[in-house]
Amino acid sequence: MKAIGKIDWAFSAGRIPFKNNGEEPLFMSHDKIAVLNTSEENAIVELLIFYEDQKPVGTYEILVRAKRLRKIRFNDLIAPEAVQLERNYSCLIQTNVPVVIQFSRMNTGANSNAEMSTIAFPVEPEN
Amino acid sequence: MKAIGKIDWAFSAGRIPFKNNGEEPLFMSHDKIAVLNTSEENAIVELLIFYEDQKPVGTYEILVRAKRLRKIRFNDLIAPEAVQLERNYSCLIQTNVPVVIQFSRMNTGANSNAEMSTIAFPVEPEN
Amino acid sequence: MKAIGKIDWAFSAGRIPFKNNGEEPLFMSHDKIAVLNTSEENAIVELLIFYEDQKPVGTYEILVRAKRLRKIRFNDLIAPEAVQLERNYSCLIQTNVPVVIQFSRMNTGANSNAEMSTIAFPVEPEN
Amino acid sequence: MKAIGKIDWAFSAGRIPFKNNGEEPLFMSHDKIAVLNTSEENAIVELLIFYEDQKPVGTYEILVRAKRLRKIRFNDLIAPEAVQLERNYSCLIQTNVPVVIQFSRMNTGANSNAEMSTIAFPVEPEN
Repeated sequence: MKAIGKIDWAFSAGRIPFKNNGEEPLFMSHDKIAVLNTSEENAIVELLIFYEDQKPVGTYEILVRAKRLRKIRFNDLIAPEAVQLERNYSCLIQTNVPVVIQFSRMNTGANSNAEMSTIAFPVEPEN
Repeated sequence: MKAIGKIDWAFSAGRIPFKNNGEEPLFMSHDKIAVLNTSEENAIVELLIFYEDQKPVGTYEILVRAKRLRKIRFNDLIAPEAVQLERNYSCLIQTNVPVVIQFSRMNTGANSNAEMSTIAFPVEPEN
Repeated sequence: MKAIGKIDWAFSAGRIPFKNNGEEPLFMSHDKIAVLNTSEENAIVELLIFYEDQKPVGTYEILVRAKRLRKIRFNDLIAPEAVQLERNYSCLIQTNVPVVIQFSRMNTGANSNAEMSTIAFPVEPEN
Repeated sequence: MKAIGKIDWAFSAGRIPFKNNGEEPLFMSHDKIAVLNTSEENAIVELLIFYEDQKPVGTYEILVRAKRLRKIRFNDLIAPEAVQLERNYSCLIQTNVPVVIQFSRMNTGANSNAEMSTIAFPVEPEN
């Protein structure tokens, strides 16, 4: 199967909630991306995190194996440094092979278990 | 009417919740896609399911009649094998005629009836 | 200002909830589209409704004035016939001038006031 | 790093809820956009607000610094005039450098803390 999707993606409205009332780890509040790699090659996913008041942090490198899905929780990113809780952030995602990326948030800190999800923005390469 | 939409689609953040407190079948927790076929021809929809830790499963073949909508619940897919509950999955969707696809989740297992929905990602054919 | 957006749009996962506990009309359960017409010309918006088990119904014609927004509730569509409650439907939207369309649902029939919203799918004209 | 994204964006389903039961300012009901500027240049973001029954208001000018994210709450826009509460509005967003924009709403006035979010619509420049 040929690779499907795009190599560059972004989303801008990241924020990891601090409070949560869910059980660990499934219902813990989190931001995550789901990366689908349909290609025959492993994908090296590079994340760059942008903030409101400091320079970008990264890159975070993550492997998504050939013909596999991987969910990446921003809570789990620790090197070069942890993504800070309760701070707005954006994320630029660049890969070596085309992938499809969906961004989701589960917020269990309020009266409800709110979930929202949107396909990330496929950044067109500017040729 | 000419066919509108795209022939290849994907979403990456699938997960069928196990717990639910809704009445069957309307409020049962589920993942689903709504496939709109505006064309004069029946659409053969082929689904391929990707997982985190095993090779892809499929294809699942589903008919969407000409000038009709069809909602496909991932809970209902049984051949070649059922989509497993509480496991992350992604889905590649390929058809013979252009369609429009929206992905939704209803989660009734928590304190609330959370619903989220997003247009799936239209995969551009790489010519 | 030049017109921005697209002339053809679609979404597939329509469904007007029957039950609701909200006050009329603001918190009544509903499906709606918000149509933004930035152009200098009035837009004639034509809706065609697709169902699972009968032929398409329409068109419904709605005016969106120049440089104005209009929210269209599917509950309010009555001619040629009302959109049926608790039935899945899809919608094809065609206009004479470019517009931007967002699809939303408010569901007040459950324990929570769930709201979901997504930009509709801009159907590329096939030249 | 080269700038990524688009220079023109829009969303149509804006509405700032009036009632809210959250603590200020984090959980107050609001509409917001998150603007990611990956470029080396500051971005001047110009917002134009459209209503159902009056002519467009704007432009509102907002600076998003180079290599930074900025969240803009529509509740906070005051000049040339405040965006009115409980009224439907749409927004056209134009910048001098490519950016990525996500639109979100937090509604804390109901029984739940409903959150919804979608990537805004990237308006293709018509060449």
